[in-house]
Amino acid sequence: MPNQFDPPSGTRDFLAAELTKRERAFGVLRSVFASYGFEPLQTPAFERVDVLLGKYGDEADKLVFKILRRGEHEASGEADLALRYDMTVPLARVAAAYGSQLPTPYKRYAMGSVWRADRPGRGRFREFTQCDIDTLGSTSPLADAEILCAHHDAMTALGLTDFRILVNSRQVLSGLLEVFAVVPELGPGVLTVLDKLDKLSPGNVISELTSRGLDEQAAGELVAAMTAEDATERIRTALKPSETGMAGLEELDRLLALVGAQIPADRIAFTPRMVRGLSYYTGSIWELVAAGVPGSIGAGGRYDHLIAQLGGPDVPATGSSLGIERILTLLPDDAGGRQGTLDLAVTVLADDLAGPSFALAARARAAGLRASVYLGASGKLGKQLRWAADQGARWCLIYGNAEREAGTVTVRDLLSAEQEAVPEAEVADYLASRAASADG
Amino acid sequence: MPNQFDPPSGTRDFLAAELTKRERAFGVLRSVFASYGFEPLQTPAFERVDVLLGKYGDEADKLVFKILRRGEHEASGEADLALRYDMTVPLARVAAAYGSQLPTPYKRYAMGSVWRADRPGRGRFREFTQCDIDTLGSTSPLADAEILCAHHDAMTALGLTDFRILVNSRQVLSGLLEVFAVVPELGPGVLTVLDKLDKLSPGNVISELTSRGLDEQAAGELVAAMTAEDATERIRTALKPSETGMAGLEELDRLLALVGAQIPADRIAFTPRMVRGLSYYTGSIWELVAAGVPGSIGAGGRYDHLIAQLGGPDVPATGSSLGIERILTLLPDDAGGRQGTLDLAVTVLADDLAGPSFALAARARAAGLRASVYLGASGKLGKQLRWAADQGARWCLIYGNAEREAGTVTVRDLLSAEQEAVPEAEVADYLASRAASADG
Repeated sequence: MPNQFDPPSGTRDFLAAELTKRERAFGVLRSVFASYGFEPLQTPAFERVDVLLGKYGDEADKLVFKILRRGEHEASGEADLALRYDMTVPLARVAAAYGSQLPTPYKRYAMGSVWRADRPGRGRFREFTQCDIDTLGSTSPLADAEILCAHHDAMTALGLTDFRILVNSRQVLSGLLEVFAVVPELGPGVLTVLDKLDKLSPGNVISELTSRGLDEQAAGELVAAMTAEDATERIRTALKPSETGMAGLEELDRLLALVGAQIPADRIAFTPRMVRGLSYYTGSIWELVAAGVPGSIGAGGRYDHLIAQLGGPDVPATGSSLGIERILTLLPDDAGGRQGTLDLAVTVLADDLAGPSFALAARARAAGLRASVYLGASGKLGKQLRWAADQGARWCLIYGNAEREAGTVTVRDLLSAEQEAVPEAEVADYLASRAASADG
Repeated sequence: MPNQFDPPSGTRDFLAAELTKRERAFGVLRSVFASYGFEPLQTPAFERVDVLLGKYGDEADKLVFKILRRGEHEASGEADLALRYDMTVPLARVAAAYGSQLPTPYKRYAMGSVWRADRPGRGRFREFTQCDIDTLGSTSPLADAEILCAHHDAMTALGLTDFRILVNSRQVLSGLLEVFAVVPELGPGVLTVLDKLDKLSPGNVISELTSRGLDEQAAGELVAAMTAEDATERIRTALKPSETGMAGLEELDRLLALVGAQIPADRIAFTPRMVRGLSYYTGSIWELVAAGVPGSIGAGGRYDHLIAQLGGPDVPATGSSLGIERILTLLPDDAGGRQGTLDLAVTVLADDLAGPSFALAARARAAGLRASVYLGASGKLGKQLRWAADQGARWCLIYGNAEREAGTVTVRDLLSAEQEAVPEAEVADYLASRAASADG
């Protein structure tokens, strides 16, 4: 039952624990991408409607959030701006706008929100983070290999190991259509249906293929080859008569050899039945799948003319998009990092003790601790200690009249409940050394 | 002359150098806020229109970017969502939505884009980053002191020193109106005009005050007191007959005493003529100003009933907003950090050398360096070295046929142009030690 204070449908408020987990993962990804020389790019949340619409077809256009014109034009009901739908259209615009200012090749990553007016559902959001790495301006298979390795390293840097990379190639698929005598008009439709082989039974895929116009024998043979135990070998053999198919295979094998030094052999495989649904891919294609996650956790490939189709210059390109929201569900909630918002809590036991207590917190911060005084209304130690524990603090500094008279501060260890009186002048050093040993 | 590939009016594309500078500054701020126990909050980019509109008056409502309804409702020309205008309305919604799940007090920071359909101009954007810290649920002056100190520490952590904090109080201002016999109906207008004392001449302020209905003698005395060399002392003396004014002064003095241990005395001062224009402040108010920057680089104060007015629970609150875009203009472009996108560039001098070159880059990354192979089409060393220099790389690994035969790699120092042959098996260690000594 939605509440009037809930965030809009399909969006989320991220409170501290979840946001910290997300930001930590984003930081890991940034650092992996930077280690390959990918540089960051950030474009505005919205683009002009003419930049955004008509690029990915009518279905995608329906999912775009459009922004009403303002002032006297608001009443027109027209939109002049629209929220970012993906990271690729803005990349094409940037490539067109900054051309020679950008390095060649231009290797960039982009991490940020995109918005789609999809029907919100389990794990499906209207505002979600997208994370893309792309290389513009290189036809080299090394560029594809770099993207694949960066994608792989990103996963392992996040601590994930139970995932696999499926690779294939548009040329291999074209070759397949050729050797199975699929007429060109049926090609795109057949590929779209083959893409469902991981969801539908072979029988259902065959009927869909025949309903699209493929003859029953060809459909049966195609599906049998794609789903066989030894599919890879059967496809390799079947492709022999096709020049395109063999060229695709050779390119794929080269890619697999390049990444072989970095990606363990059991994590990556030529997978003939993996057909990325998007028609803009022009070379190698890949998909990352993880145990227990439906669909893919990342995908990409070479798309040599898309940037031009999207309004940018005609540059060769290759890239990967990480399904960051799905990947986040695979990470443990307490992945590394300290819990709680404070290391050290400082009591305020009377109004006239507030000043020295406040100064103690400042000294603890200067010693590298996250520290705060008690800001509540109770003068009772028990209540203040409960607050300290609620903040996840490791220590509490107790400073009352007795401490003031003695020139000491009581340091309470909130884990062991042990207390120690420390001379006021030594508190900062004492805490710094305690913090260092707790970290170690 | 706007270009069809420019980002929408009032927005910006951030390429690597500027984005890196921004992210570095944001990271510094996050770490300062965390050191005080402020926790991060991230809310959606848009809210429902009813949450957002009607909260800050008609002028603000005109600046809100509204999002068209979708599907069959698009033709209605109506909006159901609107882009975030500030961080306070979402905070009020979150306080209402999560109530008891939030810690008490709730100390949070929020850093992210806000959107205002303002007329874009010099240093004025339609999409800009806002950075707020607020404490909800504490009436303690310690909470105000913490915000002020966190704000101050944030500036110094960014390396800024040439700034000042002006503090005042709504009670002091009320007391002033009282002792200068300004009738209550004129109060808000008089304060609005006094707020212009840093922009207009005293004479102009006096005429504006009289045109608002204040009698000329009172206006003259008020402005004279506020602008005198010894304004602070004159105001302190003048306030004596006002109970409210004296209570405000006492609170301010307490605040100044609390922060005195952390904020140098020459950086903070009671400033009677500083009147924050916003009527929602209820206690202490402050403003940060920096040399060479018009207006303020940050401001805040206590606002005890605003959260309720914005639709949240009626909790006491205090907070600061940092003018992050202005603050960024004060930071040097090369503030810390390494330049360039690579530490190490690896040549690819022939197709059959691509594999080993790619593996060398992987080993350099494993040794902690940002490394990439050459992805271009030229097989010429000179061209590849130029690319390496363009990336800002410190070293280039040259791996040609001669090196392959000798089992070595040539390491070229791109600063000194010196080269060294290193046995292939030792390259990773060699680079790791070179990188460590270059960092030192």
